[in-house]
Amino acid sequence: MIKRLAVLGSTGSIGQQTLEVVRAFPHRFHIVGLAAGKNIDLLAKQIREFKPRFVYYQGRKAYLADAEYEFLSLEDIARHPQVDIVVIATSGKSGLSPTLAAVKAGKNVALANKESLVTAGEIITDEAKQNSAQILPIDSEHSAIWQCLNGESQKATRLILTASGGPFYRYSPAQLEKVTVEQALRHPSWQMGRKVTIDSATLMNKGLEVIEAHWLFNMPYDNIKVLIHPQSIVHSMVEFVDGSIKAQLSYPDMRLPIQYALSYPERLNNPQLPRLDWSHINNLTFDQPDLDTFPCLRLAIEAGKKGGTYPAVLCAADEVAVELFLSQHIKFTDIAHLVEQALAQHQAIASPALEEIMAADAWTREKVTQLAGDSQCY
Amino acid sequence: MIKRLAVLGSTGSIGQQTLEVVRAFPHRFHIVGLAAGKNIDLLAKQIREFKPRFVYYQGRKAYLADAEYEFLSLEDIARHPQVDIVVIATSGKSGLSPTLAAVKAGKNVALANKESLVTAGEIITDEAKQNSAQILPIDSEHSAIWQCLNGESQKATRLILTASGGPFYRYSPAQLEKVTVEQALRHPSWQMGRKVTIDSATLMNKGLEVIEAHWLFNMPYDNIKVLIHPQSIVHSMVEFVDGSIKAQLSYPDMRLPIQYALSYPERLNNPQLPRLDWSHINNLTFDQPDLDTFPCLRLAIEAGKKGGTYPAVLCAADEVAVELFLSQHIKFTDIAHLVEQALAQHQAIASPALEEIMAADAWTREKVTQLAGDSQCY
Repeated sequence: MIKRLAVLGSTGSIGQQTLEVVRAFPHRFHIVGLAAGKNIDLLAKQIREFKPRFVYYQGRKAYLADAEYEFLSLEDIARHPQVDIVVIATSGKSGLSPTLAAVKAGKNVALANKESLVTAGEIITDEAKQNSAQILPIDSEHSAIWQCLNGESQKATRLILTASGGPFYRYSPAQLEKVTVEQALRHPSWQMGRKVTIDSATLMNKGLEVIEAHWLFNMPYDNIKVLIHPQSIVHSMVEFVDGSIKAQLSYPDMRLPIQYALSYPERLNNPQLPRLDWSHINNLTFDQPDLDTFPCLRLAIEAGKKGGTYPAVLCAADEVAVELFLSQHIKFTDIAHLVEQALAQHQAIASPALEEIMAADAWTREKVTQLAGDSQCY
Repeated sequence: MIKRLAVLGSTGSIGQQTLEVVRAFPHRFHIVGLAAGKNIDLLAKQIREFKPRFVYYQGRKAYLADAEYEFLSLEDIARHPQVDIVVIATSGKSGLSPTLAAVKAGKNVALANKESLVTAGEIITDEAKQNSAQILPIDSEHSAIWQCLNGESQKATRLILTASGGPFYRYSPAQLEKVTVEQALRHPSWQMGRKVTIDSATLMNKGLEVIEAHWLFNMPYDNIKVLIHPQSIVHSMVEFVDGSIKAQLSYPDMRLPIQYALSYPERLNNPQLPRLDWSHINNLTFDQPDLDTFPCLRLAIEAGKKGGTYPAVLCAADEVAVELFLSQHIKFTDIAHLVEQALAQHQAIASPALEEIMAADAWTREKVTQLAGDSQCY
């Protein structure tokens, strides 16, 4: 009955919310593994509370020396026989290798890390199929789609991903030129980490989600539509062959998709999760995304369609560019310029192996740093 | 593979749309029975096209004399061994007896007739359970709920029925006093028969649907909520234990719920059904119903909660009152007054047998006619 969880990235936003859900259901979930990259104080606190058997810490493990748990690599935790579900809540490319280790070991993977599926969607979904591993999406959009597909015997004909539009919804290109880091970090409806908050402001986040949806639900790109929905109540929708559409709704609260991924196929009664109050919800609005003003969404979909190493280049270029924006080295609108240039200059490889994806990633990071340093461009 | 259908009420709005769906899938559905009450010309045409084996006609059957089909009663068609699904598309209380005959014979019943479940919900659902008959809802609201429940292993915690609000949404009581039959028949989003169009204008229709939902989904009345949604795109919603809500959306077109009931658990690709065009849907609004200005909704929920013969009185009183309004004998607001008085004067019977329901129906019709004729009241 009890599901044994390893939470990789336990000190980040999704990791902490995963532990909140676990705390609410001590007789359903048991933490056997915790892993973190930087926040040693919080990790130490989590270890004291959840008493995991396996721990990974990116820094010097001397800080955490203790006889009560074993230090393992992310991959060894992910494939450990005592783990039932691996929650991949690490950020950036560090999620890829443990995700692959987990699906190869036939584990169910609750996946919050976007980069894994975006850069290596084909490899991961192939391995998952071969090893009967299930990928349980934690993103609110993919969780919504997954919930709507539940019980349907036929494939969907169209996925409709909603996007809040971010803090700069309806900004003109001229206005967008001048936005500050502080403004970009002020997301109107979701509380998230810095990288994903900037990605939400550029709409790159939605582009990455389109690529994820392509792999998770085996859906052609032309049948994945993005709609701006500023209230972030409808988390996504699915259209079926008869034209009927199902949508999933809730307040924006990541604990719901996290809990659903962990409890699936059951749902658990968690009084901490807010219930929609329809006396305050009067208006749900929908709008088409502006691909000219927010080119990152277009670039992502194009990279997804082209496939091969392009999505890895997209991810790496965006990661570097967002860091450069956050450290105030480039303008907000330069994020898209840098990603576009990296994609344009990339010599792609079709159906790449993992090493080729890694090589494309490394090439991109160097290229974008160089492009950004080139004063002629910026 | 082919499902054999009997369509009772084939010349009405739902009956005709059912035949449209059948026409689109000649290799899936086969009409074995047709039944109509009044429109002999259309019935004769339908018989020529679909060549049913069994026919019922309320009028003199001499008009339809033919050696190629057998005249049977509604009940005999409903329980015939050659019928797989009985579509109950008759209006008013004439649906009750064949519905009961069908579920007793273990047939799946695609139910568009509201009165059957409202007046005899307990008897019908008990018989359906005992005889493993499935009730497949055709109402767009109940179809939406049914679609959203598909694949969920746990009971829902709340049902949210949407209502267009009808042509008089946001009218004041004073404005409502003066509305004409013509205005009441002009429904903003649905094309339907006259009775249900007036019931939509008074919100009685939504009240009857609340009672239906109570029986169909075994849901306490306090967990069934009504929301006004003038665009009629979200057809209803379901809330689960974790607070997640699923909604079903489409343009208002009865062919979709009809087709879903017939094809369930499959969905069929019908190009005739419209697909939501999100470039034209910008705004979905939701509002609380005004139970003071539209007392029929409140009366229906109260009658449902009290149970026994009260819902039968509600139905019969409304039917007579709507007829009196359509023939311009009473004002629009008198519909609710008459229903309220009939309910107040009724001596109810708990867990009534079918004859007691019929007796309550007969008592009510006489009582409302008498009340309406009493000039002191109106």
